[in-house]
Amino acid sequence: MEKVMLEQQTIQEFLSALSSKAPVPGGGGASAIAGAIGNGLGQMVGNLTIGKKKYAQVEEEILQLLNKMEALQKELVSLANQDAEVFAPLAAAYGLPTRTEEEKVYKTKIMEENLLAASQVPIQIMEKSIEMLSAFAILAEKGSRMAVSDVGVGVQLIRSALLSAVMNVYINTKSMKNREKAQELNQYADELVANGTKQADQIYDTVLKALK
Amino acid sequence: MEKVMLEQQTIQEFLSALSSKAPVPGGGGASAIAGAIGNGLGQMVGNLTIGKKKYAQVEEEILQLLNKMEALQKELVSLANQDAEVFAPLAAAYGLPTRTEEEKVYKTKIMEENLLAASQVPIQIMEKSIEMLSAFAILAEKGSRMAVSDVGVGVQLIRSALLSAVMNVYINTKSMKNREKAQELNQYADELVANGTKQADQIYDTVLKALK
Repeated sequence: MEKVMLEQQTIQEFLSALSSKAPVPGGGGASAIAGAIGNGLGQMVGNLTIGKKKYAQVEEEILQLLNKMEALQKELVSLANQDAEVFAPLAAAYGLPTRTEEEKVYKTKIMEENLLAASQVPIQIMEKSIEMLSAFAILAEKGSRMAVSDVGVGVQLIRSALLSAVMNVYINTKSMKNREKAQELNQYADELVANGTKQADQIYDTVLKALK
Repeated sequence: MEKVMLEQQTIQEFLSALSSKAPVPGGGGASAIAGAIGNGLGQMVGNLTIGKKKYAQVEEEILQLLNKMEALQKELVSLANQDAEVFAPLAAAYGLPTRTEEEKVYKTKIMEENLLAASQVPIQIMEKSIEMLSAFAILAEKGSRMAVSDVGVGVQLIRSALLSAVMNVYINTKSMKNREKAQELNQYADELVANGTKQADQIYDTVLKALK
């Protein structure tokens, strides 16, 4: 099968593939792309801030932030592709035979490995979402006032990436035999959700106050 | 200027255009696309539900829902394009001269018209988001259990479309001279936010209970 990088698809192709019953792209890829779109708005706000006399005092800080957000953008697009890549071996593992004791043991082992890999991609999407929110906290405070509504839009999209990605952590840890590892991953994901939504809602409230 | 339909852009092109300081695409287009991605996951869940013996009893209802979601998908992509289209005349209106009293009166009139148009596109994105959430409430209850996490992902993306689009209502009504009309639009948008977030959070909680 030819590997098509998700970012090379048109939006229409992506939406069609998503809507179909094909397993990928699915929720994991969608959450990473939502995060990337949110991050893109942050980059826009940064680009509207630099080179302006009014914001000369924050120019250096915003330039550094833009570098960071550019790197985050690449990582999110890569994670959207990785989410599709970890699905195929997991689907194959679900189909392994269980006629003998050896086959059962082997299937359990392979399933565990693939469920772990499939949990770790959304966890990385969540970690990147938290990093993006830190950048947005700075943009909300120091970015161009003209584009403050776009800070609010970006924050909501990143918040949705966080709360979307966690779905794909839960659905994979749910099938893991190693309950200790599963609980550990869920607990870490829950902490990221709690911290991230709190930060996102604070930034959004700041933007709302500037707008209304 | 050649008109490029947003859905014909690759995801990479869209992200690059969004990140740049070019005025469009901006927050309005991003919110419509986030909604379309969320809706696409709902269509996927519907497509995974139909044709299955287990879900034969809901087959007809889900088929109708799929038709509705397909129409919503087209409307959201169209709204993403409309958001870009209403921006150009608004930007031009901001640049109108105000040397004479006549020019001032004319500018105010044209500004009002364009601010109203620019407020109405995000309001439509919000209305479509509410319609999508109604479809998701049915999917959460009756759609394939296998894809329940994707219902959760879709709901978060639509919630973000709603809370993103409202930013673009506020930023345009803020500049309107007709404060009565501005208040009326804000109040309607606030109601959509209140109803929509309540419904989205309820659906997400249902999904969480099924997953954890």
